[in-house]
Amino acid sequence: MLNFDPQRYLRIQSGALALTSQLRDAIAASLTEGRRNIFFLGTGGAAILMMPAVQLLQRRSGFPTFLESSAELVLTGHQALGPQSIVIIPSLSGTTRESIAALEYCKGKGAKVFTLVGHAETPLGTAADQTFVNFAEDDTSCESFYLQSLAIALAIMDARQEIAGCAAIVDQLGRLPQLLLEAKRRFEPLAEQIAERWKDEAYHIIIGAGPTWPEAFYYGMCILEEMQWIRTRPVHASDFFHGTLELVDKTVSILLFKGEDETRPLAERVEAFVAGLTDKLQVLDTADVNLPGISPQVRALISPVILAALLERVSAHLEVKRNHPLVTRRYYRRVAY
Amino acid sequence: MLNFDPQRYLRIQSGALALTSQLRDAIAASLTEGRRNIFFLGTGGAAILMMPAVQLLQRRSGFPTFLESSAELVLTGHQALGPQSIVIIPSLSGTTRESIAALEYCKGKGAKVFTLVGHAETPLGTAADQTFVNFAEDDTSCESFYLQSLAIALAIMDARQEIAGCAAIVDQLGRLPQLLLEAKRRFEPLAEQIAERWKDEAYHIIIGAGPTWPEAFYYGMCILEEMQWIRTRPVHASDFFHGTLELVDKTVSILLFKGEDETRPLAERVEAFVAGLTDKLQVLDTADVNLPGISPQVRALISPVILAALLERVSAHLEVKRNHPLVTRRYYRRVAY
Repeated sequence: MLNFDPQRYLRIQSGALALTSQLRDAIAASLTEGRRNIFFLGTGGAAILMMPAVQLLQRRSGFPTFLESSAELVLTGHQALGPQSIVIIPSLSGTTRESIAALEYCKGKGAKVFTLVGHAETPLGTAADQTFVNFAEDDTSCESFYLQSLAIALAIMDARQEIAGCAAIVDQLGRLPQLLLEAKRRFEPLAEQIAERWKDEAYHIIIGAGPTWPEAFYYGMCILEEMQWIRTRPVHASDFFHGTLELVDKTVSILLFKGEDETRPLAERVEAFVAGLTDKLQVLDTADVNLPGISPQVRALISPVILAALLERVSAHLEVKRNHPLVTRRYYRRVAY
Repeated sequence: MLNFDPQRYLRIQSGALALTSQLRDAIAASLTEGRRNIFFLGTGGAAILMMPAVQLLQRRSGFPTFLESSAELVLTGHQALGPQSIVIIPSLSGTTRESIAALEYCKGKGAKVFTLVGHAETPLGTAADQTFVNFAEDDTSCESFYLQSLAIALAIMDARQEIAGCAAIVDQLGRLPQLLLEAKRRFEPLAEQIAERWKDEAYHIIIGAGPTWPEAFYYGMCILEEMQWIRTRPVHASDFFHGTLELVDKTVSILLFKGEDETRPLAERVEAFVAGLTDKLQVLDTADVNLPGISPQVRALISPVILAALLERVSAHLEVKRNHPLVTRRYYRRVAY
């Protein structure tokens, strides 16, 4: 695989999963000591990667769950935030300015703050009530953060007896690093083809639904826009039909994510609609990915994880074909703001 | 004012506000009969227009409040939806397919469903537990839906004694139709200038925060994309710094909304950053709009309403200068999907 270190990938994803029992214990202890709601905070991409877990909790658990932008929360406050709250703040670098401010704000309100970081000796690594460290560089944080936030959601639902067979789910998740590595390897030729087709595209509409919507949002904003300076329009599969569809013609590139959760029909509706309207539809369907031993229930939960694993391969080829390194920035950490 | 009927505008906005007491009574009755949470559903733009009210309730009221996409909800279900729920479904046409499905789904769960429609004799107008009708055509629904959802939020908070001086707020809101009409008139020359500058622009980044973020999302998707076939990237002022900023150069058009709520510093941060980087920054600041008799507290609440009133004037000039009527569609109601 192009510019890829399989051992490092296995280490990072296994590292994320190795935190599962620590996260479960921390959540269980928090519930036992009477914490009564949870906030997922975060900034930019790291916040987006919390969304599938938030969606799962809000729809399937009676435990009050809030998703807030760090930067807004410290300005507006929130009636439910206080000593009764668990706060989750993910930041790979451990230095995200808005997240540091949110951590201080939440601690000031008496909340119990857990951080998910890639580096322990950082402001977010050292100032939390408990820190969960999984060393990782920028390019491989997606699956890791999806899996850590999923572990938190499952821990809450398990403790509240809102989900059956949680241990079996966690057991299956443990097989993922190796399975995703194999999936990447099989996807490599298609990844290169996609990158070849995309290398001169100036604009993509990126569409998902349910747990794959956050991955559409993330891949557009944090990879194509930030790392390749390509314009994107991330749009939810349902919203698409209420505005963005009018932009579609033969020349418009559309990237559509199909997951295996209950919202799959929303992506299928988009596919059926745009198939004849553009010559540039690219569908990524998690159902095409062979993952032996992973149940339909777990495949639904990890649809965004699978997509992130595949898309990293597209990005790897894009940076080469476009002669635009993924690490190049105009402004980030080059200009003060 | 170009292509504008002041009497019709006053009638629609006054009509929305005239529903305030009915909405208050309906909410009070629902709380009295033991309803314990509220869902704002909706599809496309109408759902977006509920967001400021949802944000207000989630951050300032202890009444559990959920925002869900109609299309997703009927597929995924939601643990909190049941006989204990109030459900708000806005749809100007009263015929939105996904919203009709959501209404039937919610009624099946025993929820009390209120619809906000422009036309009574429609599926959404006739099938709800209670229907609030404010006759309006497509082009003037924004302020009306913002104001109706705000009335619902205020009614809940007032009944729960979570806000002081609610009657005075409602009294001030009653002056808005005339004040917004005057604001539009004063804005007309600038609206024409903006439309002139924009008429050949193929892409805009549109930025807001807090209650103005939904207006950025709405104006991009439902006006510029749907009605003018212009590409947009609606992005939250905080997210902007975590990806989309890398797209900015001298040639990129940016539309920035500044409201008067607590999140204003997020918009100011964007303004300070992009001011020297693009020659095409357009700021719309509600603080520039004179509204005699409206308190700072109310101005903060209605920041998206003010912006919607001004932006309608830009759209009116755009359709003429671009020779692209706002009602023209490629696909909507022309193709089955």
